[in-house]
Amino acid sequence: MTHAGTPPTPRSTLVVTAHAGDFVWRAGGAIALAASRGEKVTIACLTFGERGESAKAWRAGKTLEEIKAIRREEAERAAAVLGAQVRFFDAGDYPLVATAELTDQLVALYRETQPDVVLTHPVEDPYNGDHPAANRMALQARVLAQAIGYPAPGEIIGAPPVFYFEPHQPEMCGFTPDVLLDITEVWETKRKAMECLAAQQHLWDYYTDLAVRRGVQLKRNAGPNLGLPHKTVAEAYMRPYPQVTKELA
Amino acid sequence: MTHAGTPPTPRSTLVVTAHAGDFVWRAGGAIALAASRGEKVTIACLTFGERGESAKAWRAGKTLEEIKAIRREEAERAAAVLGAQVRFFDAGDYPLVATAELTDQLVALYRETQPDVVLTHPVEDPYNGDHPAANRMALQARVLAQAIGYPAPGEIIGAPPVFYFEPHQPEMCGFTPDVLLDITEVWETKRKAMECLAAQQHLWDYYTDLAVRRGVQLKRNAGPNLGLPHKTVAEAYMRPYPQVTKELA
Amino acid sequence: MTHAGTPPTPRSTLVVTAHAGDFVWRAGGAIALAASRGEKVTIACLTFGERGESAKAWRAGKTLEEIKAIRREEAERAAAVLGAQVRFFDAGDYPLVATAELTDQLVALYRETQPDVVLTHPVEDPYNGDHPAANRMALQARVLAQAIGYPAPGEIIGAPPVFYFEPHQPEMCGFTPDVLLDITEVWETKRKAMECLAAQQHLWDYYTDLAVRRGVQLKRNAGPNLGLPHKTVAEAYMRPYPQVTKELA
Amino acid sequence: MTHAGTPPTPRSTLVVTAHAGDFVWRAGGAIALAASRGEKVTIACLTFGERGESAKAWRAGKTLEEIKAIRREEAERAAAVLGAQVRFFDAGDYPLVATAELTDQLVALYRETQPDVVLTHPVEDPYNGDHPAANRMALQARVLAQAIGYPAPGEIIGAPPVFYFEPHQPEMCGFTPDVLLDITEVWETKRKAMECLAAQQHLWDYYTDLAVRRGVQLKRNAGPNLGLPHKTVAEAYMRPYPQVTKELA
Amino acid sequence: MTHAGTPPTPRSTLVVTAHAGDFVWRAGGAIALAASRGEKVTIACLTFGERGESAKAWRAGKTLEEIKAIRREEAERAAAVLGAQVRFFDAGDYPLVATAELTDQLVALYRETQPDVVLTHPVEDPYNGDHPAANRMALQARVLAQAIGYPAPGEIIGAPPVFYFEPHQPEMCGFTPDVLLDITEVWETKRKAMECLAAQQHLWDYYTDLAVRRGVQLKRNAGPNLGLPHKTVAEAYMRPYPQVTKELA
Amino acid sequence: MTHAGTPPTPRSTLVVTAHAGDFVWRAGGAIALAASRGEKVTIACLTFGERGESAKAWRAGKTLEEIKAIRREEAERAAAVLGAQVRFFDAGDYPLVATAELTDQLVALYRETQPDVVLTHPVEDPYNGDHPAANRMALQARVLAQAIGYPAPGEIIGAPPVFYFEPHQPEMCGFTPDVLLDITEVWETKRKAMECLAAQQHLWDYYTDLAVRRGVQLKRNAGPNLGLPHKTVAEAYMRPYPQVTKELA
Repeated sequence: MTHAGTPPTPRSTLVVTAHAGDFVWRAGGAIALAASRGEKVTIACLTFGERGESAKAWRAGKTLEEIKAIRREEAERAAAVLGAQVRFFDAGDYPLVATAELTDQLVALYRETQPDVVLTHPVEDPYNGDHPAANRMALQARVLAQAIGYPAPGEIIGAPPVFYFEPHQPEMCGFTPDVLLDITEVWETKRKAMECLAAQQHLWDYYTDLAVRRGVQLKRNAGPNLGLPHKTVAEAYMRPYPQVTKELA
Repeated sequence: MTHAGTPPTPRSTLVVTAHAGDFVWRAGGAIALAASRGEKVTIACLTFGERGESAKAWRAGKTLEEIKAIRREEAERAAAVLGAQVRFFDAGDYPLVATAELTDQLVALYRETQPDVVLTHPVEDPYNGDHPAANRMALQARVLAQAIGYPAPGEIIGAPPVFYFEPHQPEMCGFTPDVLLDITEVWETKRKAMECLAAQQHLWDYYTDLAVRRGVQLKRNAGPNLGLPHKTVAEAYMRPYPQVTKELA
Repeated sequence: MTHAGTPPTPRSTLVVTAHAGDFVWRAGGAIALAASRGEKVTIACLTFGERGESAKAWRAGKTLEEIKAIRREEAERAAAVLGAQVRFFDAGDYPLVATAELTDQLVALYRETQPDVVLTHPVEDPYNGDHPAANRMALQARVLAQAIGYPAPGEIIGAPPVFYFEPHQPEMCGFTPDVLLDITEVWETKRKAMECLAAQQHLWDYYTDLAVRRGVQLKRNAGPNLGLPHKTVAEAYMRPYPQVTKELA
Repeated sequence: MTHAGTPPTPRSTLVVTAHAGDFVWRAGGAIALAASRGEKVTIACLTFGERGESAKAWRAGKTLEEIKAIRREEAERAAAVLGAQVRFFDAGDYPLVATAELTDQLVALYRETQPDVVLTHPVEDPYNGDHPAANRMALQARVLAQAIGYPAPGEIIGAPPVFYFEPHQPEMCGFTPDVLLDITEVWETKRKAMECLAAQQHLWDYYTDLAVRRGVQLKRNAGPNLGLPHKTVAEAYMRPYPQVTKELA
Repeated sequence: MTHAGTPPTPRSTLVVTAHAGDFVWRAGGAIALAASRGEKVTIACLTFGERGESAKAWRAGKTLEEIKAIRREEAERAAAVLGAQVRFFDAGDYPLVATAELTDQLVALYRETQPDVVLTHPVEDPYNGDHPAANRMALQARVLAQAIGYPAPGEIIGAPPVFYFEPHQPEMCGFTPDVLLDITEVWETKRKAMECLAAQQHLWDYYTDLAVRRGVQLKRNAGPNLGLPHKTVAEAYMRPYPQVTKELA
Repeated sequence: MTHAGTPPTPRSTLVVTAHAGDFVWRAGGAIALAASRGEKVTIACLTFGERGESAKAWRAGKTLEEIKAIRREEAERAAAVLGAQVRFFDAGDYPLVATAELTDQLVALYRETQPDVVLTHPVEDPYNGDHPAANRMALQARVLAQAIGYPAPGEIIGAPPVFYFEPHQPEMCGFTPDVLLDITEVWETKRKAMECLAAQQHLWDYYTDLAVRRGVQLKRNAGPNLGLPHKTVAEAYMRPYPQVTKELA
């Protein structure tokens, strides 16, 4: 679908998240995989997670601005490790409020990045209302960006597939894995990115264990014949829209 | 995963259906696509649909054996058009009863065909109990065929992905499209296979309209940029197990 | 749809229940309403409820045959009060086992009674497995009775609407009222029929209260303007199949 | 319920829709049926669909005002064909935002029209957020209009039944047909109304095919004995509230 | 968990309701039980129910302020009977609008009362949108009150279990009883509290019947051996979060 | 409820499982906790898991009888470590078939053990049909054992609460944690019991990680104030029946 003489546009992935750390824990493998194939990955961090996910810093007496600065810097380092670029919207967390203005900024980002794939939070999370708010804006902006009548800069987009990454307590969020993504070959990269988030060290092992657990399930769903490595690790995703394909596999 | 010097085994698809005509209306496109790529497709017809889906023949005064013979012959011709092979189990329909013996025969077929993909009916169908019965046996046999301890001939199988094809009244059967399969390039083949089923001529147009409808939805879920032909036609499938992949797309 | 000169066939209702008392508590109002309009109502009691719903009689030292006789006599009196006819199948309860033979007898009853309406238990009941067993056979027999190829006496039937009556603990059985049936005008009849079931006197008031409760909800769903009587009483039903109509109301 | 000497008030239907074309494609049959019985039908179009459903006009270089004017004129002609009256709210689409002011205008319309039946969009639509927004306002306004304490002109209303019409991709919107409405006798009228929407000519055949499909299902759910015409066409609806009735049918 | 020398803090229950009467009908038993054990119970009434639940007073020609005063006085008397304290927020009902300001006031109340248990409305209620609005704010405020970074007075709270009390039409609100609470020993107190609500006398018997009904179900779920009194009465609750325990029982 | 002079009967737990190892991985903590309180725990192993869960032994060339003997011996040792007693039914696995005879044996066991608590598999498991078969028989036998009319030795039972333990892939089995059980104080015992299952050494760490994961979630649902140890470990359970209680907590 590219014309002879012009280099093909690399595939583009857009990740829309509520807080600065979310993309690392939940989608670091998918991001690293895409980047390792030479694709472009853009991460929208709607907030820094400054109020709701920085308890340790608050207890240490940091100010709001200091906390934001720390979170920003950590997220930028983690994104660099993964091979992605971050955009910060600083919309304020706990609660993150879904607004027309913020949605409009996301429409512009969709049109700018022309994503082939979109990653975001699932619909429900009874433990953190910011995640559903991010989900709603990510989905609404994707639909608006498709409409030629919606007044925003840039070309309209197609209908890129959407993937929801895994929440902290999946069963309480109506999360059922529709896709198990094999991230074995980028695992070291994801682990390094996690280690950029110094304030949440207790999560490093937690998300390592989760990757092993999803890897065991991946092997169980792929059968014993595939020659998968013993230490397969994986991430789980949901699809809110049907997969479009030319081959059942 | 194949050794140098031996030609690779072609991919194998196993289709487990209740009645002789089911594979044509519901999965003819997927079968034709696989065959067109040189893959092997085996269709298990558990019954001929002689009692529940042959009203016209009964009204014309045919005997049970005559009806079975007609249905068998039609199914064989349709399968030949699609490029697949049929196995008949003649287990008796309306009702098709799930038994250990029939399930055991399916286990043997799984081990013989070593499928990479399995197609069958969805779990529910309040209009025809034979379809759920076929589903239950297809799923159970797949699990049993994986166990080295289950006494049946042949090698154990892996965990091939399963796809449910679309029932007649999808919303009443809990059917939600997880996959939209583009069958445009084999459409003429599917239409010809449908036309082998002379007794159900009223369904030819019905399933042609359905293919158009699913095609419209496919385009809606793929976005305007993909250069899909105006007359895209499609089939819809559900996935009861998670997709295993190395790339989100 | 009737020819001049022949009197029209009255509408026919078929009620398929697990135990001898079920039709009174759960559908007595619907039965009495149909009978009061001159329609024919046939009740299939698959068992007498001799083991699972006769604790009092067992404690009083009755024998199995005595208990069956008592239950049969009570059910016949209650049916007579409601204006319906009962057929007993004596298939044995606790557990009622779904078999091909019993289902076949139900197919024959469907073809004999040619029902315009079918009433039965809902799909689930975690407190009594006989109810789901009756449901499965009632639904399967209805589908088989439609097929000209199914070998049973009588003419094939159409696709009569099915209504599930209310179980004892509706929320635990996935029961959501799709229909609220106003039974105010036959209430006295239903109460008299309930009083025929002497062994379960504690349920008379329980089901009276339920009728009031469903009546309050009926008024809430009908609006204040309908001139419904203060003491409206109702029964709740679910529809497993779509309503077919020429007018939205 | 009407007094001697005063002619009875005709039944009233209120249709609440997001965009100017919605009522034609999705509920044209129900509207034409009601009008053909001499009933009053009022259509609330909350927006003209000027941004989200007018791609062709935008590509043709029309201005926003021109597009609104075209859509208004088309909708008025289609409504006239169906026998209904339209009210435009011009609330702005893509996104249609649910506001207290707009809801309040709907409360006034409920009290003015005193509907016996309400039609609107279903709760979910992951392809178009305007539809759920219209649903929320339609339902909320219906409840507010029932309360004597809510300050709006006119008499309070009862609790008219609500029907959700069919969305474009029903399975993706949680849409299950609760009601199949036979629209055969007004089919020509619906087709003519569709043809008033010149800009969306590709949908004429799409919605004709859908009517045939729902008609086939209607016949399947009504049984072979009802003498339905070969070319039965239908529309599908969901009921969010229980049906209130005096007869199971 | 209390230090020697300081008297233990009594357990604290927080009840968040939309309208002044809700806590009596739906949770009066739980409140009276807690109070009878010496615990502290605080009831947040977000509105007086002045518009949506005071039809009788409006028909009697009362003004808005008079109605609020009546409802306040009734609620205070009922709370006193139950042994609880009420806080009125006067946020305006029909519709109750979820706002950041009101949510913030609830955060402050959470931090002030440090609840061990939270009671509120369930997520859905298609008959009254104020109940879901109260639910959303109650849940959101509970999460915000846990975050050290959220700027509100008082200490952060833990993660107290939440219980949803029963709505008027449970099956239409997705309400399934997860907990049946035996309120037999405080029944007279609950009845007296209900009788404080003079304007809604028709509900006294309605909620008495409901308590009997839930009591019958409680006995059915507890088995015949527990020596429960003949007249057991109960309230039903849902749990949105998992129960945390050291013993299965 | 015990008479003066007779020592109280200790509480009794009945665990119904499909395969010999299931009770260790999935409910070892609950069993050890009950035993540590002096309660009686009886484990019904319907099969040894000889065909479906002994791949390693089959590959090592063991015979069916050898495999059964190994599995029996391992299960007995693990049960002894946990403080429970095992009953083997040797009903044959892969597939375990639900029969009237086996169900009848379970009825007898219910009446013999008079359980206060029942643990078993959840309703669904698309990876192993033996688990749902065990579930169905465990639930049906519990209901039958309650009926005085059911002919089996021993006294009838009450309605003991049922808990479903966690399956291997919870989200694929419709498993949502209703209860998080703190098993920290018996963790060493559970680990030792797991280590009795030598053939499945790869699961030791898998289920250790799971216990940590559920422990993190337990702490998240209990709040920061409870003084839970850093290394809290937990097991998750579902409740198919409502909890009966006198206190919300």
